[in-house]
Amino acid sequence: MDVFLELAVILITAKLMGYLSSRLGFPAALGQIIGGILLGPSLLNFVAYGEGVRLISELGVIMLLFLAGLETDMEEFKRVGLPAFLIASLGVAVPFIFGYAVALRWGYPGMEALFLGGVMTATSVSLTASVLMEMKRLRTRVGAAILAAAVVDDVLGIIILTILVAMNTKGTVYVGDIAVLLVEIAAFFLLSYLIGRGIVKKVLRSSHRINLPETVTTVSIVVMLIFAYLAEYFQIAAITGAYLAGILVAGSDDARKITDKIITLGYAFFIPVFLVGVGAETDAHVVLAAGAFALVYSLLAIVGKVIGCGIGGILSKFSPMESLQIGVGMIPRMEVGLIMANIGLSEGILTNESFSIAIAMVMATTLVTPPLLKLAFSRR
Amino acid sequence: MDVFLELAVILITAKLMGYLSSRLGFPAALGQIIGGILLGPSLLNFVAYGEGVRLISELGVIMLLFLAGLETDMEEFKRVGLPAFLIASLGVAVPFIFGYAVALRWGYPGMEALFLGGVMTATSVSLTASVLMEMKRLRTRVGAAILAAAVVDDVLGIIILTILVAMNTKGTVYVGDIAVLLVEIAAFFLLSYLIGRGIVKKVLRSSHRINLPETVTTVSIVVMLIFAYLAEYFQIAAITGAYLAGILVAGSDDARKITDKIITLGYAFFIPVFLVGVGAETDAHVVLAAGAFALVYSLLAIVGKVIGCGIGGILSKFSPMESLQIGVGMIPRMEVGLIMANIGLSEGILTNESFSIAIAMVMATTLVTPPLLKLAFSRR
Repeated sequence: MDVFLELAVILITAKLMGYLSSRLGFPAALGQIIGGILLGPSLLNFVAYGEGVRLISELGVIMLLFLAGLETDMEEFKRVGLPAFLIASLGVAVPFIFGYAVALRWGYPGMEALFLGGVMTATSVSLTASVLMEMKRLRTRVGAAILAAAVVDDVLGIIILTILVAMNTKGTVYVGDIAVLLVEIAAFFLLSYLIGRGIVKKVLRSSHRINLPETVTTVSIVVMLIFAYLAEYFQIAAITGAYLAGILVAGSDDARKITDKIITLGYAFFIPVFLVGVGAETDAHVVLAAGAFALVYSLLAIVGKVIGCGIGGILSKFSPMESLQIGVGMIPRMEVGLIMANIGLSEGILTNESFSIAIAMVMATTLVTPPLLKLAFSRR
Repeated sequence: MDVFLELAVILITAKLMGYLSSRLGFPAALGQIIGGILLGPSLLNFVAYGEGVRLISELGVIMLLFLAGLETDMEEFKRVGLPAFLIASLGVAVPFIFGYAVALRWGYPGMEALFLGGVMTATSVSLTASVLMEMKRLRTRVGAAILAAAVVDDVLGIIILTILVAMNTKGTVYVGDIAVLLVEIAAFFLLSYLIGRGIVKKVLRSSHRINLPETVTTVSIVVMLIFAYLAEYFQIAAITGAYLAGILVAGSDDARKITDKIITLGYAFFIPVFLVGVGAETDAHVVLAAGAFALVYSLLAIVGKVIGCGIGGILSKFSPMESLQIGVGMIPRMEVGLIMANIGLSEGILTNESFSIAIAMVMATTLVTPPLLKLAFSRR
């Protein structure tokens, strides 16, 4: 199909299905994902999601996290630093053990089982951020804890991936390699925050001197892109970099105005393409064909996060209901999980079958999160 | 290069070079094109302009024309209907004859010479629209005449292309084929305007019922995309469809608000990528290697449009200075010219050498327009 028509179909599907979903009491994001499944290869096969549309979709998720960063209350964020670490650590440990144990019991060899545990570890906060923004719950203590914990477990996930791949290829793990990775990641966060903050503020201020239309918005987009790139360079997910960029730009004089402009750019065009894209990438056949193990594995992925993060929340003095909200918010796996599964496949650790099961788990967590989030946040 | 970094470099180049250019008294668009040449394959070879970035660039030019449509004063537009037809017809005839004659004289065979004349005919108004918007001269009678005439000569160019290709393949021209094409094009414009106006108005109004963020903006983007697609379907340039969509949306209740939002989307992201892209697609080597004929041919492309459209302007009772402004505004050739050249090459009518010469002409008209426009509009 012509790419203009394809984009038109994607955008109109996003708005109509989002509307329908919100009218039925579900988050709009769920409807958009289901709209994507309808359009995608498993059903109507109406959209191709070629390289161009995929780039727009990638920019959509980056803008979503950039916005989440812009709307993060920095004071709240600092206050949840330690809790986030606890939540993230337990939220990584419990699913990892669950996934490893069930795979081992189901007869998978040790390395494959370990990898199936690893794929479960890292939360993708983009969907949760989208739903929480929609419900105007992002700027709460719970919202801040979820976002911060997701940044931490992204890093933990990367470390686990590195260790597992090293174990597989070299048969042994060199502490040196892991130390280098840790130093790199720490350097990225420290330098970004300590040096980046001043530079971003200064660059945004001096961009006022360029009297071309929308220059400040463009410059803030540039900041977002550069941090997304830097994060990938340091082997962290691009969305983590974009989120960090949002936090940095939020400290500038124009934060309010920039946020409004990015909302326009994001919600008018990029974010709907991303949310429909999540559905379009879903191959319903894979999920249906995955079988009983996939069901148990996906269930453990969901329960594992809720238990792990929930305990982390309670240990951090969140109320039981807040801890449940945090646990549910941390359910979605996406980018890092998919990256891990892909690496597992290409390294020969996962088979096509266990790869499909990992994909099915990613899809299950994606589909289950928006309604669960709405449910968890509707009670108090 | 990573695509995020590439986009960051493109955006920052656009704003910095645009700023520099406007500080030196040239239009910002010229600086952005030169920035693109610097980044492009002929010099730094810093940007790849892969499929993704190219789609963003295409969306940029479409948004530019959509904006031009949104800002078109419909009353003025109707008043310039007949003059636009006169301006376009002479602006097509004179360059066509010039190009054909000089190519024939230079020893090119008849069919190739005809095609080299044809490539010269159709104005691409995107660059002119960008400069006029920048100078806030789009909503003048001259601005309206240029935009309307460019729509007409786009259609004339397509007809010429069809005739030439038919002459080449069949050795003869069937009046029936041309009649079908004419009916198709007429149907597109008539149906778009007569039926489309009511539908667009109604769709935009009912989109208010969807209470998701930025829905009206998204729906207006959908209208733009659909008309760009329909135009291509009817063998007209996508930008002509987008311009028409802008005129239709301008008749809706939310026109002002939509215009502001599209300005944000366009100027913050898409349009800079397009303008830098124009430069990045320019291969300076082709221009330098094209030789004496390319120089004469390009010069005639420029002079031919100014003379043809200028006479059209004077016959339509524009003042001599206004007629000159119109002529200069009609100089740029881009999409249709490039499409024609590509078809000529693939049909075996143009050789690689004469194809390069056509490309050089397109580039020359692009580079020469912004400063000439500024000059022509600075005097009154």
